[in-house]
Amino acid sequence: MKVSVVKNILEANERIAQENRAIFDEKNLLVFNLMSSPGAGKTTLLEKTIAALKDEFRIGVIEGDIQSSQDAERIAVMGVPAVQVNTGGACHLDGNMIRDTFKEFDFDVLDLLVVENVGNLVCPAEFKVGEDFKAMILSVTEGDDKPAKYPLMFHESKVLLINKIDLLPYVDCSVEKIREEALKVNPGLAIFGISCKTGEGLQQWYDWLGEKVKARRNQS
Amino acid sequence: MKVSVVKNILEANERIAQENRAIFDEKNLLVFNLMSSPGAGKTTLLEKTIAALKDEFRIGVIEGDIQSSQDAERIAVMGVPAVQVNTGGACHLDGNMIRDTFKEFDFDVLDLLVVENVGNLVCPAEFKVGEDFKAMILSVTEGDDKPAKYPLMFHESKVLLINKIDLLPYVDCSVEKIREEALKVNPGLAIFGISCKTGEGLQQWYDWLGEKVKARRNQS
Repeated sequence: MKVSVVKNILEANERIAQENRAIFDEKNLLVFNLMSSPGAGKTTLLEKTIAALKDEFRIGVIEGDIQSSQDAERIAVMGVPAVQVNTGGACHLDGNMIRDTFKEFDFDVLDLLVVENVGNLVCPAEFKVGEDFKAMILSVTEGDDKPAKYPLMFHESKVLLINKIDLLPYVDCSVEKIREEALKVNPGLAIFGISCKTGEGLQQWYDWLGEKVKARRNQS
Repeated sequence: MKVSVVKNILEANERIAQENRAIFDEKNLLVFNLMSSPGAGKTTLLEKTIAALKDEFRIGVIEGDIQSSQDAERIAVMGVPAVQVNTGGACHLDGNMIRDTFKEFDFDVLDLLVVENVGNLVCPAEFKVGEDFKAMILSVTEGDDKPAKYPLMFHESKVLLINKIDLLPYVDCSVEKIREEALKVNPGLAIFGISCKTGEGLQQWYDWLGEKVKARRNQS
Protein backbone atom coordinates (compact mmCIF):
# COMPACT_ATOMS: atom_id res chain seq x y z
CA MET A 1 0.00 0.00 0.00
CA LYS A 2 2.68 2.46 1.07
CA VAL A 3 4.84 1.35 -1.84
CA SER A 4 2.07 1.92 -4.39
CA VAL A 5 1.40 5.41 -3.00
CA VAL A 6 5.08 6.27 -3.37
CA LYS A 7 5.03 4.82 -6.90
CA ASN A 8 2.05 7.00 -7.82
CA ILE A 9 3.78 10.11 -6.48
CA LEU A 10 6.91 9.31 -8.52
CA GLU A 11 4.87 8.64 -11.66
CA ALA A 12 2.90 11.88 -11.31
CA ASN A 13 6.19 13.73 -10.84
CA GLU A 14 7.66 12.05 -13.91
CA ARG A 15 4.84 13.41 -16.07
CA ILE A 16 5.35 16.97 -14.83
CA ALA A 17 9.12 16.65 -15.27
CA GLN A 18 8.57 15.63 -18.90
CA GLU A 19 6.36 18.68 -19.46
CA ASN A 20 9.06 20.91 -17.97
CA ARG A 21 11.63 19.23 -20.17
CA ALA A 22 9.59 19.94 -23.29
CA ILE A 23 9.63 23.64 -22.42
CA PHE A 24 13.40 23.64 -21.79
CA ASP A 25 13.93 21.79 -25.10
CA GLU A 26 11.89 24.32 -27.01
CA LYS A 27 14.10 27.10 -25.63
CA ASN A 28 17.38 25.16 -26.12
CA LEU A 29 18.08 25.77 -22.46
CA LEU A 30 20.57 23.53 -20.65
CA VAL A 31 19.27 22.66 -17.19
CA PHE A 32 21.11 20.82 -14.45
CA ASN A 33 19.99 19.78 -10.99
CA LEU A 34 22.68 20.27 -8.34
CA MET A 35 22.52 17.98 -5.30
CA SER A 36 24.62 17.28 -2.18
CA SER A 37 24.52 16.90 1.58
CA PRO A 38 23.92 20.11 3.57
CA GLY A 39 26.99 22.31 3.58
CA ALA A 40 28.97 20.51 0.87
CA GLY A 41 29.26 23.80 -1.03
CA LYS A 42 26.46 23.99 -3.62
CA THR A 43 25.81 27.74 -3.36
CA THR A 44 29.52 28.59 -3.19
CA LEU A 45 30.17 26.49 -6.30
CA LEU A 46 27.37 28.37 -8.08
CA GLU A 47 28.84 31.74 -7.05
CA LYS A 48 32.21 30.71 -8.51
CA THR A 49 30.67 29.21 -11.66
CA ILE A 50 28.49 32.25 -12.34
CA ALA A 51 31.46 34.60 -11.90
CA ALA A 52 33.50 32.51 -14.35
CA LEU A 53 30.84 31.94 -17.01
CA LYS A 54 28.37 34.80 -16.89
CA ASP A 55 30.10 36.85 -19.59
CA GLU A 56 29.90 33.94 -21.98
CA PHE A 57 26.51 32.46 -21.06
CA ARG A 58 23.23 33.83 -19.73
CA ILE A 59 22.55 31.99 -16.49
CA GLY A 60 19.50 31.68 -14.23
CA VAL A 61 19.20 29.90 -10.87
CA ILE A 62 16.42 28.24 -8.90
CA GLU A 63 17.36 27.93 -5.22
CA GLY A 64 15.63 25.17 -3.28
CA ASP A 65 15.55 25.25 0.51
CA ILE A 66 13.18 24.01 3.15
CA GLN A 67 12.93 27.57 4.36
CA SER A 68 14.86 30.89 4.25
CA SER A 69 15.87 32.91 1.18
CA GLN A 70 19.54 33.57 1.92
CA ASP A 71 20.82 31.42 -0.96
CA ALA A 72 18.76 33.23 -3.61
CA GLU A 73 19.97 36.52 -2.13
CA ARG A 74 23.59 35.36 -2.45
CA ILE A 75 23.01 34.56 -6.14
CA ALA A 76 20.90 37.63 -6.98
CA VAL A 77 23.68 40.05 -5.95
CA MET A 78 25.75 38.52 -8.76
CA GLY A 79 23.36 40.05 -11.28
CA VAL A 80 21.70 36.88 -12.53
CA PRO A 81 18.00 36.02 -12.14
CA ALA A 82 17.51 33.85 -9.02
CA VAL A 83 14.23 32.49 -7.68
CA GLN A 84 13.93 30.95 -4.21
CA VAL A 85 11.67 27.93 -3.76
CA ASN A 86 10.80 27.02 -0.18
CA THR A 87 9.61 23.45 0.13
CA GLY A 88 7.95 24.11 3.50
CA GLY A 89 9.38 20.99 5.11
CA ALA A 90 9.79 18.72 2.10
CA CYS A 91 13.23 17.15 1.69
CA HIS A 92 13.61 17.57 -2.08
CA LEU A 93 12.43 19.59 -5.08
CA ASP A 94 9.91 18.11 -7.48
CA GLY A 95 8.71 18.95 -10.97
CA ASN A 96 5.75 20.91 -9.75
CA MET A 97 7.83 23.25 -7.58
CA ILE A 98 10.09 23.97 -10.55
CA ARG A 99 7.16 24.61 -12.88
CA ASP A 100 5.81 27.16 -10.40
CA THR A 101 8.91 29.31 -10.93
CA PHE A 102 8.60 29.56 -14.72
CA LYS A 103 6.55 32.76 -14.59
CA GLU A 104 9.54 34.45 -12.89
CA PHE A 105 11.94 33.76 -15.80
CA ASP A 106 12.28 34.77 -19.44
CA PHE A 107 13.76 31.58 -20.88
CA ASP A 108 14.28 33.29 -24.28
CA VAL A 109 17.23 35.18 -22.82
CA LEU A 110 18.85 32.27 -20.91
CA ASP A 111 21.38 29.62 -21.96
CA LEU A 112 21.74 27.78 -18.67
CA LEU A 113 19.35 27.20 -15.77
CA VAL A 114 20.74 25.71 -12.57
CA VAL A 115 18.44 24.10 -10.02
CA GLU A 116 20.05 23.94 -6.58
CA ASN A 117 18.27 21.24 -4.63
CA VAL A 118 17.66 20.91 -0.88
CA GLY A 119 20.77 19.68 0.95
CA ASN A 120 20.13 15.96 1.16
CA LEU A 121 22.19 13.05 -0.17
CA VAL A 122 19.16 10.77 -0.46
CA CYS A 123 15.74 12.00 -1.59
CA PRO A 124 16.52 14.53 -4.36
CA ALA A 125 18.04 11.72 -6.46
CA GLU A 126 14.61 10.11 -6.79
CA PHE A 127 12.84 13.10 -8.31
CA LYS A 128 13.32 14.51 -11.81
CA VAL A 129 12.50 18.15 -12.39
CA GLY A 130 12.98 18.15 -16.18
CA GLU A 131 16.78 18.58 -16.09
CA ASP A 132 19.26 17.52 -18.80
CA PHE A 133 21.42 15.97 -16.11
CA LYS A 134 22.02 15.78 -12.39
CA ALA A 135 25.28 17.00 -10.83
CA MET A 136 26.43 16.25 -7.30
CA ILE A 137 29.00 17.50 -4.83
CA LEU A 138 30.65 15.36 -2.18
CA SER A 139 32.90 17.20 0.25
CA VAL A 140 36.01 15.37 1.47
CA THR A 141 34.94 16.09 5.05
CA GLU A 142 32.02 13.68 4.53
CA GLY A 143 34.38 10.73 4.12
CA ASP A 144 35.25 8.27 1.37
CA ASP A 145 32.63 5.65 2.33
CA LYS A 146 29.74 7.65 0.90
CA PRO A 147 29.39 6.12 -2.61
CA ALA A 148 28.85 2.70 -1.03
CA LYS A 149 26.39 4.04 1.57
CA TYR A 150 24.37 6.46 -0.59
CA PRO A 151 24.66 4.86 -4.05
CA LEU A 152 21.52 6.20 -5.73
CA MET A 153 22.74 9.79 -5.97
CA PHE A 154 26.08 8.66 -7.42
CA HIS A 155 24.18 6.43 -9.83
CA GLU A 156 21.83 9.16 -11.02
CA SER A 157 24.46 11.89 -11.48
CA LYS A 158 26.38 12.65 -14.66
CA VAL A 159 29.14 14.54 -12.86
CA LEU A 160 30.64 14.37 -9.35
CA LEU A 161 32.53 17.32 -7.89
CA ILE A 162 34.72 16.29 -4.95
CA ASN A 163 34.90 19.58 -3.04
CA LYS A 164 37.02 21.02 -0.22
CA ILE A 165 40.19 19.22 -1.34
CA ASP A 166 42.11 22.01 0.46
CA LEU A 167 41.05 20.24 3.70
CA LEU A 168 42.61 16.89 2.72
CA PRO A 169 45.65 17.36 5.01
CA TYR A 170 43.31 17.59 8.02
CA VAL A 171 40.76 14.82 7.37
CA ASP A 172 40.86 11.05 6.94
CA CYS A 173 39.63 10.77 3.38
CA SER A 174 41.06 9.34 0.18
CA VAL A 175 39.98 11.04 -3.04
CA GLU A 176 41.21 7.97 -4.90
CA LYS A 177 38.86 5.76 -2.88
CA ILE A 178 35.92 8.10 -3.57
CA ARG A 179 36.73 7.89 -7.31
CA GLU A 180 37.01 4.11 -7.28
CA GLU A 181 33.83 3.55 -5.27
CA ALA A 182 31.84 6.11 -7.24
CA LEU A 183 32.90 4.55 -10.57
CA LYS A 184 31.81 1.14 -9.28
CA VAL A 185 28.32 2.59 -8.81
CA ASN A 186 28.38 4.60 -12.05
CA PRO A 187 31.18 3.85 -14.54
CA GLY A 188 30.20 6.79 -16.77
CA LEU A 189 30.52 9.43 -14.04
CA ALA A 190 32.68 12.49 -14.82
CA ILE A 191 34.70 13.36 -11.69
CA PHE A 192 36.55 16.55 -10.76
CA GLY A 193 38.44 17.26 -7.55
CA ILE A 194 37.91 20.92 -6.64
CA SER A 195 38.36 23.50 -3.93
CA CYS A 196 35.99 26.45 -4.05
CA LYS A 197 38.28 28.09 -1.48
CA THR A 198 41.59 27.92 -3.40
CA GLY A 199 40.11 27.56 -6.89
CA GLU A 200 41.99 24.33 -7.58
CA GLY A 201 40.34 22.16 -10.23
CA LEU A 202 37.54 24.63 -11.01
CA GLN A 203 38.74 25.48 -14.53
CA GLN A 204 38.19 21.87 -15.62
CA TRP A 205 34.63 22.01 -14.34
CA TYR A 206 33.98 25.35 -16.09
CA ASP A 207 35.32 23.90 -19.36
CA TRP A 208 33.23 20.74 -19.04
CA LEU A 209 30.06 22.70 -18.27
CA GLY A 210 30.77 25.32 -20.94
CA GLU A 211 31.01 22.60 -23.59
CA LYS A 212 27.64 21.24 -22.50
CA VAL A 213 25.98 24.68 -22.71
CA LYS A 214 27.46 25.34 -26.14
CA ALA A 215 26.37 21.96 -27.47
CA ARG A 216 22.83 22.63 -26.23
CA ARG A 217 22.72 26.11 -27.75
CA ASN A 218 23.94 24.77 -31.10
CA GLN A 219 20.91 22.51 -31.27
CA SER A 220 18.80 25.56 -32.14
CA MET B 1 -4.43 13.99 -0.98
CA LYS B 2 -0.66 13.71 -0.78
CA VAL B 3 -0.74 15.52 2.57
CA SER B 4 -3.31 13.14 4.04
CA VAL B 5 -1.28 10.13 2.90
CA VAL B 6 1.81 11.54 4.61
CA LYS B 7 -0.28 12.26 7.71
CA ASN B 8 -1.50 8.66 7.80
CA ILE B 9 2.04 7.32 7.47
CA LEU B 10 3.19 9.54 10.34
CA GLU B 11 0.24 8.49 12.54
CA ALA B 12 0.82 4.80 11.87
CA ASN B 13 4.48 5.28 12.75
CA GLU B 14 3.55 7.13 15.94
CA ARG B 15 1.54 4.12 17.15
CA ILE B 16 4.42 1.71 16.54
CA ALA B 17 6.87 4.11 18.20
CA GLN B 18 4.63 4.18 21.29
CA GLU B 19 4.60 0.39 21.41
CA ASN B 20 8.40 0.34 21.16
CA ARG B 21 8.58 2.94 23.89
CA ALA B 22 6.43 0.82 26.22
CA ILE B 23 8.93 -2.04 25.82
CA PHE B 24 11.91 0.23 26.53
CA ASP B 25 10.10 1.65 29.58
CA GLU B 26 9.43 -1.80 30.96
CA LYS B 27 13.18 -2.58 30.71
CA ASN B 28 14.29 0.85 32.06
CA LEU B 29 16.36 1.19 28.95
CA LEU B 30 17.52 4.65 27.86
CA VAL B 31 17.21 4.99 24.08
CA PHE B 32 18.42 7.84 21.95
CA ASN B 33 18.14 8.44 18.22
CA LEU B 34 21.30 9.93 16.71
CA MET B 35 20.87 12.02 13.56
CA SER B 36 23.05 14.17 11.28
CA SER B 37 24.03 14.85 7.68
CA PRO B 38 26.13 12.16 5.97
CA GLY B 39 29.69 12.18 7.26
CA ALA B 40 29.20 14.47 10.27
CA GLY B 41 30.69 11.78 12.51
CA LYS B 42 27.86 9.69 13.99
CA THR B 43 29.66 6.33 13.93
CA THR B 44 32.95 7.83 15.12
CA LEU B 45 31.16 9.52 18.03
CA LEU B 46 29.60 6.17 18.94
CA GLU B 47 32.99 4.45 18.85
CA LYS B 48 34.39 7.07 21.25
CA THR B 49 31.32 7.02 23.49
CA ILE B 50 31.26 3.22 23.72
CA ALA B 51 34.98 3.13 24.59
CA ALA B 52 34.43 5.71 27.34
CA LEU B 53 31.23 4.31 28.87
CA LYS B 54 31.13 0.58 28.23
CA ASP B 55 32.71 -0.37 31.57
CA GLU B 56 30.03 1.59 33.41
CA PHE B 57 26.98 0.89 31.24
CA ARG B 58 25.81 -1.98 29.05
CA ILE B 59 25.33 -0.52 25.58
CA GLY B 60 23.66 -1.78 22.40
CA VAL B 61 23.53 -0.14 18.97
CA ILE B 62 21.16 -0.21 16.00
CA GLU B 63 22.91 1.02 12.84
CA GLY B 64 20.67 2.45 10.16
CA ASP B 65 21.92 2.79 6.59
CA ILE B 66 20.33 2.70 3.17
CA GLN B 67 22.65 -0.16 2.37
CA SER B 68 25.98 -1.71 3.49
CA SER B 69 26.87 -3.09 6.91
CA GLN B 70 30.22 -1.40 7.52
CA ASP B 71 28.94 0.74 10.40
CA ALA B 72 27.60 -2.23 12.40
CA GLU B 73 30.92 -4.00 11.78
CA ARG B 74 32.80 -0.97 13.17
CA ILE B 75 30.67 -1.11 16.33
CA ALA B 76 30.63 -4.89 16.75
CA VAL B 77 34.43 -5.09 17.01
CA MET B 78 34.12 -2.98 20.17
CA GLY B 79 32.41 -5.91 21.89
CA VAL B 80 28.90 -4.49 22.14
CA PRO B 81 25.80 -5.90 20.42
CA ALA B 82 25.21 -4.09 17.12
CA VAL B 83 22.45 -4.76 14.60
CA GLN B 84 22.49 -3.30 11.09
CA VAL B 85 19.21 -2.14 9.57
CA ASN B 86 19.23 -1.50 5.81
CA THR B 87 16.36 0.72 4.73
CA GLY B 88 16.67 -0.39 1.09
CA GLY B 89 16.43 3.13 -0.28
CA ALA B 90 14.39 4.85 2.42
CA CYS B 91 15.88 8.07 3.78
CA HIS B 92 15.13 7.53 7.49
CA LEU B 93 14.44 4.86 10.12
CA ASP B 94 10.90 4.32 11.36
CA GLY B 95 9.33 2.53 14.30
CA ASN B 96 8.71 -0.62 12.36
CA MET B 97 12.34 -1.06 11.29
CA ILE B 98 13.45 -0.66 14.92
CA ARG B 99 10.87 -3.15 16.18
CA ASP B 100 12.19 -5.71 13.68
CA THR B 101 15.57 -5.68 15.47
CA PHE B 102 14.20 -6.52 18.93
CA LYS B 103 14.62 -10.28 18.47
CA GLU B 104 18.37 -9.67 18.09
CA PHE B 105 18.77 -8.06 21.53
CA ASP B 106 18.39 -9.08 25.16
CA PHE B 107 17.13 -5.83 26.67
CA ASP B 108 17.37 -7.27 30.18
CA VAL B 109 21.15 -6.91 30.03
CA LEU B 110 21.28 -3.42 28.48
CA ASP B 111 21.23 0.08 30.04
CA LEU B 112 21.53 2.14 26.87
CA LEU B 113 20.40 1.55 23.30
CA VAL B 114 21.64 3.93 20.61
CA VAL B 115 19.86 4.17 17.28
CA GLU B 116 22.11 5.64 14.58
CA ASN B 117 19.86 6.99 11.85
CA VAL B 118 20.48 7.33 8.11
CA GLY B 119 22.68 10.36 7.31
CA ASN B 120 20.10 13.01 6.48
CA LEU B 121 19.47 16.39 8.11
CA VAL B 122 15.80 16.43 7.10
CA CYS B 123 13.62 13.33 7.12
CA PRO B 124 14.75 11.42 10.26
CA ALA B 125 13.52 14.31 12.43
CA GLU B 126 9.92 13.55 11.42
CA PHE B 127 9.87 9.93 12.56
CA LYS B 128 9.86 8.68 16.14
CA VAL B 129 11.20 5.20 16.81
CA GLY B 130 10.29 5.06 20.51
CA GLU B 131 13.36 6.94 21.76
CA ASP B 132 13.64 8.92 25.02
CA PHE B 133 15.25 11.75 23.07
CA LYS B 134 16.83 12.68 19.77
CA ALA B 135 20.47 13.78 19.55
CA MET B 136 22.07 15.47 16.55
CA ILE B 137 25.52 16.24 15.26
CA LEU B 138 26.39 19.23 13.08
CA SER B 139 29.93 19.36 11.79
CA VAL B 140 31.58 22.79 11.50
CA THR B 141 32.41 21.99 7.87
CA GLU B 142 28.68 22.17 7.10
CA GLY B 143 28.54 25.88 7.95
CA ASP B 144 26.81 28.05 10.52
CA ASP B 145 23.68 28.73 8.45
CA LYS B 146 22.24 25.26 9.04
CA PRO B 147 19.91 25.88 12.03
CA ALA B 148 18.04 28.50 9.97
CA LYS B 149 17.89 26.29 6.87
CA TYR B 150 17.08 22.91 8.50
CA PRO B 151 15.19 23.96 11.62
CA LEU B 152 13.10 20.85 12.30
CA MET B 153 16.02 18.65 13.33
CA PHE B 154 17.33 21.33 15.70
CA HIS B 155 13.82 21.75 17.06
CA GLU B 156 13.27 18.04 17.70
CA SER B 157 16.66 17.33 19.31
CA LYS B 158 17.45 17.48 23.00
CA VAL B 159 21.20 17.78 22.48
CA LEU B 160 23.38 19.18 19.69
CA LEU B 161 26.99 18.11 19.29
CA ILE B 162 29.00 20.55 17.18
CA ASN B 163 31.70 18.24 15.81
CA LYS B 164 35.06 18.64 14.05
CA ILE B 165 35.97 21.81 15.97
CA ASP B 166 39.62 20.89 15.24
CA LEU B 167 38.90 22.08 11.67
CA LEU B 168 37.75 25.57 12.73
CA PRO B 169 41.04 27.24 11.67
CA TYR B 170 40.48 26.04 8.10
CA VAL B 171 36.75 26.70 7.52
CA ASP B 172 34.48 29.74 7.53
CA CYS B 173 32.20 28.82 10.42
CA SER B 174 31.33 30.44 13.74
CA VAL B 175 30.45 28.07 16.57
CA GLU B 176 28.93 31.04 18.39
CA LYS B 177 26.58 31.69 15.46
CA ILE B 178 25.55 28.00 15.37
CA ARG B 179 24.76 28.20 19.11
CA GLU B 180 22.76 31.40 18.76
CA GLU B 181 20.78 30.24 15.74
CA ALA B 182 20.14 26.79 17.20
CA LEU B 183 18.89 28.26 20.47
CA LYS B 184 16.52 30.52 18.54
CA VAL B 185 14.95 27.38 17.07
CA ASN B 186 15.09 25.41 20.34
CA PRO B 187 15.88 27.36 23.54
CA GLY B 188 16.12 24.17 25.62
CA LEU B 189 18.82 22.55 23.47
CA ALA B 190 21.94 21.28 25.27
CA ILE B 191 24.99 22.11 23.13
CA PHE B 192 28.53 20.74 23.25
CA GLY B 193 31.43 21.63 20.96
CA ILE B 194 33.49 18.50 20.34
CA SER B 195 36.25 17.00 18.25
CA CYS B 196 36.19 13.24 17.88
CA LYS B 197 39.70 13.55 16.45
CA THR B 198 41.40 15.41 19.33
CA GLY B 199 38.91 14.42 22.06
CA GLU B 200 38.18 18.04 22.97
CA GLY B 201 34.80 18.50 24.66
CA LEU B 202 33.92 14.80 24.71
CA GLN B 203 34.11 14.40 28.49
CA GLN B 204 31.23 16.87 28.93
CA TRP B 205 29.13 14.80 26.53
CA TYR B 206 30.01 11.55 28.33
CA ASP B 207 29.05 13.13 31.68
CA TRP B 208 25.76 14.48 30.32
CA LEU B 209 24.84 11.14 28.75
CA GLY B 210 25.99 9.12 31.78
CA GLU B 211 23.67 11.15 34.04
CA LYS B 212 20.77 10.40 31.71
CA VAL B 213 21.48 6.65 31.73
CA LYS B 214 21.81 6.57 35.54
CA ALA B 215 18.57 8.51 36.01
CA ARG B 216 16.79 6.06 33.72
CA ARG B 217 18.22 3.01 35.50
CA ASN B 218 17.21 4.43 38.88
CA GLN B 219 13.59 4.46 37.78
CA SER B 220 13.55 0.69 38.22
